[in-house]
Amino acid sequence: MDCFNVTILGCGSAKPTLRHSPSAQVVDFRGNRFLVDCGEGVQVGLCRSRVPMGKIGHIFLSHLHGDHCLGLTGLISTLGLGQRTGEVVIHGPADTERIFSPLFKFFCPDLSMEVRFAPFDTTQSCIIYEDHALIVRTIPLHHRVPCSGFLFEEKQRDRHLLPDRCEELGIPIAYYQGIKKGMDWTDPESGRVVANDLLTTPGERGRKYAYCSDTIYAESVVPIIEGADVLYHEATYTHDELAKARQRGHSTALQAAQIAQKAHVGKLVLGHFSAQFLTAESEQPLLDEARSLFPNTVLANEKMTIEIGLE
Amino acid sequence: MDCFNVTILGCGSAKPTLRHSPSAQVVDFRGNRFLVDCGEGVQVGLCRSRVPMGKIGHIFLSHLHGDHCLGLTGLISTLGLGQRTGEVVIHGPADTERIFSPLFKFFCPDLSMEVRFAPFDTTQSCIIYEDHALIVRTIPLHHRVPCSGFLFEEKQRDRHLLPDRCEELGIPIAYYQGIKKGMDWTDPESGRVVANDLLTTPGERGRKYAYCSDTIYAESVVPIIEGADVLYHEATYTHDELAKARQRGHSTALQAAQIAQKAHVGKLVLGHFSAQFLTAESEQPLLDEARSLFPNTVLANEKMTIEIGLE
Repeated sequence: MDCFNVTILGCGSAKPTLRHSPSAQVVDFRGNRFLVDCGEGVQVGLCRSRVPMGKIGHIFLSHLHGDHCLGLTGLISTLGLGQRTGEVVIHGPADTERIFSPLFKFFCPDLSMEVRFAPFDTTQSCIIYEDHALIVRTIPLHHRVPCSGFLFEEKQRDRHLLPDRCEELGIPIAYYQGIKKGMDWTDPESGRVVANDLLTTPGERGRKYAYCSDTIYAESVVPIIEGADVLYHEATYTHDELAKARQRGHSTALQAAQIAQKAHVGKLVLGHFSAQFLTAESEQPLLDEARSLFPNTVLANEKMTIEIGLE
Repeated sequence: MDCFNVTILGCGSAKPTLRHSPSAQVVDFRGNRFLVDCGEGVQVGLCRSRVPMGKIGHIFLSHLHGDHCLGLTGLISTLGLGQRTGEVVIHGPADTERIFSPLFKFFCPDLSMEVRFAPFDTTQSCIIYEDHALIVRTIPLHHRVPCSGFLFEEKQRDRHLLPDRCEELGIPIAYYQGIKKGMDWTDPESGRVVANDLLTTPGERGRKYAYCSDTIYAESVVPIIEGADVLYHEATYTHDELAKARQRGHSTALQAAQIAQKAHVGKLVLGHFSAQFLTAESEQPLLDEARSLFPNTVLANEKMTIEIGLE
C-alpha cells in the first residue's frame, strides 16, 4: 500500500530532559513530508531519523507554546541555506506570523525559498490542506492558549477495476481512469448504461491519522477523529494527577484512552510526557493505565515510526 | 586553586549535525556559572553536562546569528518556570533586546525572575561584568554582523602573608586582609613603615580565558587576549578553504593557531566546526593544521571541561 506513516521526533513536554525532545513529528504521505509541531531540536530529530529536510513543504503548528514551535526559526534558516526553492507553508494559529515573521526577517533574510503563513481558526474544524489524495483538517483542542490538533485523512481510494468485464464490454482503456473513480459506462453506440458497481469493486477506505496535543479531556474531538487508524494523544500525566492536568490544560493517560475508545480508533499512541518521567520504567504506569481501557496503546518514543492503517 | 573552568555544550556551526550542537558553553568561576552563547539545544547540553541551570545569572551573546542565540527563549522560559528569583542579565549586541524581548513577553510572560538586557558596543573592548574577583571584557571580532568575543579575567589574587614576620612585628590580625591586598604596615606607636614586600610574597597572577567565535583572522584581538591561559577560537574550516572562510567571516584552523601563537596563550581550543566534519577522523586535519604551528591545541567537543590555568 502507498506509504503513510508518522515518525516521532519529539514527545516530551515543556521542561527539557535527556529522555525526550519537545514536540515534533513528521507525517510521510506517499513521499510528501508534513511536519507537525516544531519544538527546539527539531533539526537534530530530522537528522537522526534521516528525514530529508528538503521534502518538507508544509509545517503545522498546533499552538504557540515554546515547546511546540521554538525550533521553527532554526529550521527555516537551515532550509533556506540550501538549494531549496518553491514555498514552505506554515499553518498555525492567528499569532504565528506576527511572532515568527520578524524572526525570519532578522535571522534568515536571504532565504532561497518563499515562506507563506496560513493562519487557521482554532475554534472550529476546517480543512487547511488538500491535494488529490490527502486532506488535513484541524481538530479544535482546549488548552491554555488557542490550540488545534490535525487530522490527516487519505481520500477514498480508487475503486478496483474488473478488467475482464471491461474487456468483454469493449470499453476503451481511456475510460478506465474515470470508471475507477466511480463513473458508469455508457456504450456510445447502443446508449446502454452499465452501472459502475458491475465494472468495479470498492476501493479501500482512506486511512486517517489524528494528532491531539495539547489538550484537556475534550469529547468534542471524538466525532472529528472517529475511526482514525492511529491517534496520537497527549498523556502528560497519570490519572492520579488529574487535578494538575486540568489546571495546566493537559490530559491523563486514562483520558487519552477514553477518547481513543469513544472514537473507535485503531491504535493509540501516548505522548507529550511530563519531565517527571525520566526512564522507560517511570513511563510504564502511563501505558498500563491507558491499556486498562484501550489495549492497543503504545508509548511514543523518538525515532519511532508508526505505519498508519496497516493493522 | 579556586575553580575556573569552561564546559563546552556546543561547538558546531550553523548547519546542524548529529556530531555537534550549535555554540554554547558555560564558564564556571568559583561556582558562578556564566553562559557564553546560547544555541538551540542549550538546555539539553546543560542537562547532559549536569550544569545546574539555576546558577546561571549572566548570559553573554557574542552575536545574533541563530546558531549562537536561538536557544535563549526556551532557556529563559525554563528558568522562569522554576523557583528561580532575582535577575538574569543578558549581555549582547545592540539588537538583542529588540529581538528577544517580544519573544519573552509572548512565550514566557510569567517569569519567576527578572530579565535585564545589557547591550554592549561590539566596536571596542569594554568591561561588561565585574565582581570582586572576576572581570569580563568584550573582544571586538570581525564577522558578518556585529560580534564580540569575551575575555574572562580573574583579578590579581591576594598576596601571600608571611605570618611569622607579621607576628614578630606584632601586627594585629585585623590588618592582615589589607596587607594581603598590598598595603604597607605602619606601626602606630613608632611610626615605622614596613614595606608590604617584607610581609608578603606575590599572589598568583589572575587566570584568563578568551572566547573568540565567530571571526575572520583578526590580529586586533591579540593585545586583548595576550597571555590568556586558554583561548577558544573558531576554526570553521581548514586552511585550504581560506577563501570560503573569508567570504563567510570565519577563520581556518591555521589562523586560529596564528592568533594563539602571537598572543602567547597557554592552550588553544578549536571549535565552531563546519557541518562538513561529521566524524572525529574528518576533524583531525583541523587539529593537525593548528598543531603544526601551535602544539598545545585540542579540538572542542560537547561535554568537554577545560580547566583554566592549571598547566
